[in-house]
Amino acid sequence: MGIVTLTTDLGHKDFYQAALKGSIISQFPAVRLVDISHEIPPFDIQYAAYVLKNAYTYFPEKTVHLIGIDSVFNEDTRYLAVQYNNHFFVGADNGVFSLILDGPPTEAVELNIIQDLKYLHFPLTDIFAKAACHLARGGELTEIGDPVDSMVERTLVQPVVEKDSLRGSVVFVDSFGNVISNISKELFNKVQRGRKFVLYFRRNETIDQMSWHYNEVPEGEKLCLFGISNYLEIAINKGNASGLLGLNKGDIIRVEFKK
Amino acid sequence: MGIVTLTTDLGHKDFYQAALKGSIISQFPAVRLVDISHEIPPFDIQYAAYVLKNAYTYFPEKTVHLIGIDSVFNEDTRYLAVQYNNHFFVGADNGVFSLILDGPPTEAVELNIIQDLKYLHFPLTDIFAKAACHLARGGELTEIGDPVDSMVERTLVQPVVEKDSLRGSVVFVDSFGNVISNISKELFNKVQRGRKFVLYFRRNETIDQMSWHYNEVPEGEKLCLFGISNYLEIAINKGNASGLLGLNKGDIIRVEFKK
Amino acid sequence: MGIVTLTTDLGHKDFYQAALKGSIISQFPAVRLVDISHEIPPFDIQYAAYVLKNAYTYFPEKTVHLIGIDSVFNEDTRYLAVQYNNHFFVGADNGVFSLILDGPPTEAVELNIIQDLKYLHFPLTDIFAKAACHLARGGELTEIGDPVDSMVERTLVQPVVEKDSLRGSVVFVDSFGNVISNISKELFNKVQRGRKFVLYFRRNETIDQMSWHYNEVPEGEKLCLFGISNYLEIAINKGNASGLLGLNKGDIIRVEFKK
Repeated sequence: MGIVTLTTDLGHKDFYQAALKGSIISQFPAVRLVDISHEIPPFDIQYAAYVLKNAYTYFPEKTVHLIGIDSVFNEDTRYLAVQYNNHFFVGADNGVFSLILDGPPTEAVELNIIQDLKYLHFPLTDIFAKAACHLARGGELTEIGDPVDSMVERTLVQPVVEKDSLRGSVVFVDSFGNVISNISKELFNKVQRGRKFVLYFRRNETIDQMSWHYNEVPEGEKLCLFGISNYLEIAINKGNASGLLGLNKGDIIRVEFKK
Repeated sequence: MGIVTLTTDLGHKDFYQAALKGSIISQFPAVRLVDISHEIPPFDIQYAAYVLKNAYTYFPEKTVHLIGIDSVFNEDTRYLAVQYNNHFFVGADNGVFSLILDGPPTEAVELNIIQDLKYLHFPLTDIFAKAACHLARGGELTEIGDPVDSMVERTLVQPVVEKDSLRGSVVFVDSFGNVISNISKELFNKVQRGRKFVLYFRRNETIDQMSWHYNEVPEGEKLCLFGISNYLEIAINKGNASGLLGLNKGDIIRVEFKK
Repeated sequence: MGIVTLTTDLGHKDFYQAALKGSIISQFPAVRLVDISHEIPPFDIQYAAYVLKNAYTYFPEKTVHLIGIDSVFNEDTRYLAVQYNNHFFVGADNGVFSLILDGPPTEAVELNIIQDLKYLHFPLTDIFAKAACHLARGGELTEIGDPVDSMVERTLVQPVVEKDSLRGSVVFVDSFGNVISNISKELFNKVQRGRKFVLYFRRNETIDQMSWHYNEVPEGEKLCLFGISNYLEIAINKGNASGLLGLNKGDIIRVEFKK
């Protein structure tokens, strides 16, 4: 179908994202461009990965996802194109791939379409756009790069699992102020085994009911649920949980299950 | 033509609006998607209605307008698709329709394409996207829902009309700081009947001339006009009227006509 | 190909940019619309010109660039459509063209498709959209306007060039905080003639090495380079140079070359 999505920290006030779009359209006039976000905080690989990991599965198979974050050239830089879960991803080998993919890629290549990488000023237009257009037109990975066996690995802090408890942390605060942790629904259910629970956070805050929707408690009340992302989330019905509860990225949360 | 517009409070920093777009494109690859705005303040139905009411008429007939605001499921929620003025609107029956439409819809249905609404996490992708794609492909309302006779009504504060005066209020401040009231050009003209007027606001501020353009007074001077929205608007030539005059949403303004 | 790009100060919170898009799509359903930016600061012609001047060359020839900035009608207003460098530009004759073009246009016309300009409330939808669609469909300039010989000229402050020095100023700060001057690479090279240099700014700050990439110095260190825009730029590797160094638009920078 020829879809290219864009996830960058380029913002909307400069000419950079427009240059990227112009470059892609010039190379592949029939492309469909979709902005995932250009408002990733500068250089925040983890943020970019969180957003794209949750968004990409909504797109048709064969969609090409261009990741424009922390991609300035240096001596060690490799630019990759990767196939995973029937989607394509193009970006710098800075660890972002390992945060998006849940396992090894089906296929991965180091881009070889530009010889003298070190004179590139803007890899997004100069090399990523070209690779993305090639893939969006249905081209093969091996036509634009050499196979690689490994990628830079970055790992998120994982929850500490004990028999009757889970200790996780906040990995993301969305623009509504919902607080999203690193405790997946799958992990929670596995440790819970049907038992009652208490979720502890901050000094004295607790929640002991699991909600399905944000509005199952009165407006202004706190709740927890497994949201769209399938991770344990702390929210306030029609309120900003992060602001009102003082919960920020990196903060610890703890779940105790009844013995 | 297959156009779907999006009006939501999802912002651009999360994956939510991207998920919505991916979901629509997956279902209807030939769709044309247009963002009306994803920067509606969270849960602000009145704001969403103001923006969409003023924007939708610029689009071709048969355009489908998806309204993603305050649509989390609860026991009383109905999700509607509505035809009005040869456009389609899809959203939650939270009163937003009554603020957009100037009268009863040509046709309105309660969506019945999903059986178990209460397990939906994200109605925008799970049900609104499906309904919008159906309509954008030229499908009938009755194929996706059951006819309804009434919708939740929400009304804005209306101006108080007397023989020689009008008392209205500020309903919107745009991003230039222009202050837009609930006094329509039509109502103003009807009460004015060609007479001179004085517009009063704040403690001592007055304006007694109607401008046609923002630049008919010197830069930095206040003025009033009927702007693009056709409602009485207080502005400052190249300045932020809301900030400089201290006029905010809900504030009272008064027009006195010469007896 | 039928591409129209949009560069405006309309923002994303109001209905104005949506109205503009709807208007264009209604007139030319097959158009490809691309947002350059809607976040130009209100009325900032120089900012709009900087962004569009740097972005437009990435687009295919024949692309139409609609400039929606400071275009409210007044007695002296002329609305122009201009061809330059095989691209088209449509906007108000407020000086923005002279800041984008590097020389006289190939062809320029004053739009004559609307008779009574003074009753227009919103020139972007009422006249610019119509002109842009005409050109994007492949129409001629002379079918929509009368030839003009001159345009309003606005000039940027130019660097002061001496035998062994250059004195320039900051013309733009991008959203990463990179500080961009009015000293072009071409001018710098011409005066440098291979000599060593010292760049002075603020009270005591100096840089005496030219970098090629932002990451050639340790993180948090300042550097200078000719960036994507080809103008001398002061930056901090992974930091906000404008904020950390206190460098803002209009500030003076000085380059001294070894005698």
